[in-house]
Amino acid sequence: MSRWEPNARGRLEQAALDLYSERGFEQTTVAEIAKRAGLTERTYFRHFADKREVLFGGTGPLHDLLMNTVAAVPESTAPIAVVTVALDAVAAVFQGRHAHSRKRQAVIVANPELRERELIKMAAWSAALADALRRRGVADPAASLAAEAGIAVFKVAYERWVGEAEDRGLARLVRESFDELKAVTVGE
Amino acid sequence: MSRWEPNARGRLEQAALDLYSERGFEQTTVAEIAKRAGLTERTYFRHFADKREVLFGGTGPLHDLLMNTVAAVPESTAPIAVVTVALDAVAAVFQGRHAHSRKRQAVIVANPELRERELIKMAAWSAALADALRRRGVADPAASLAAEAGIAVFKVAYERWVGEAEDRGLARLVRESFDELKAVTVGE
Repeated sequence: MSRWEPNARGRLEQAALDLYSERGFEQTTVAEIAKRAGLTERTYFRHFADKREVLFGGTGPLHDLLMNTVAAVPESTAPIAVVTVALDAVAAVFQGRHAHSRKRQAVIVANPELRERELIKMAAWSAALADALRRRGVADPAASLAAEAGIAVFKVAYERWVGEAEDRGLARLVRESFDELKAVTVGE
Repeated sequence: MSRWEPNARGRLEQAALDLYSERGFEQTTVAEIAKRAGLTERTYFRHFADKREVLFGGTGPLHDLLMNTVAAVPESTAPIAVVTVALDAVAAVFQGRHAHSRKRQAVIVANPELRERELIKMAAWSAALADALRRRGVADPAASLAAEAGIAVFKVAYERWVGEAEDRGLARLVRESFDELKAVTVGE
């Protein structure tokens, strides 16, 4: 980031989200986002490849967090417990971001292209999580299933969290959804 | 389907799969697919919107099968058992299609755009399955979680099935993966 553009990335993300909320995703141009953020289009493209990526820019660090957490869990931990710890770490990042996340979700849900991008992000998390489990010596299909189940739980919990006006805490909803998955899979 | 083009749809699907396997997805044109099938481009576009859809043309009927099966299961059945029955019905359709499915999977895996389309198809199945469960009176998040878990199981089982040279039967792998999911979620 250049010295004369403090927090350009964050400003562009906020400007984009505001404009997408006000006018819709399709109706907003990169020039307008840059202008709203008090920056140039050139600066925009230094940070984001296109109009979509500004909504998904934070997911690379989350991906790394997921991986680093898995690597840090003690060897003997059961696969599903590893996944739980990793998702807890990701959920913690969303603390204090309920209003922002709800606004972002409204933009995503309104646009098929963005919904697809969100799905692909989740699938990438699942694949990475399964890889990380395999690297810990978890065999397949247990590694794939633990990862898929974990991401399914996160997805359901996240959608509940952003769907509710009151912020009940993403971490709590992830734990609740995990318990619910256990109950569901044993056929209760 | 016109009378003078018997099984045009099936012939186009087979021609496309053969050409995508031989030359790659990007290197094949609709004109070439139509020619290989002994049909015209116009006929192609009467059946499929684009080059991708010819690989996913069978998924609409599968979606309906999934829904109809769910509707036919007795009222008192537990959500996860409903999902199991529905996936059994879908798996049955793949009987005798192991070689074909392996060929299709090789084409899909080689192309990011096709991988995304496959993900989106699975997500649509999951959403439809959750909806069908809700219509049976299953509350959320149980409906979403049972559907997500079921589709995750199917996905893992399908990838194992097409990943193995020997055809062990998709239905059997789906059941094995379900058992494995139960073991994984309780932390065994």
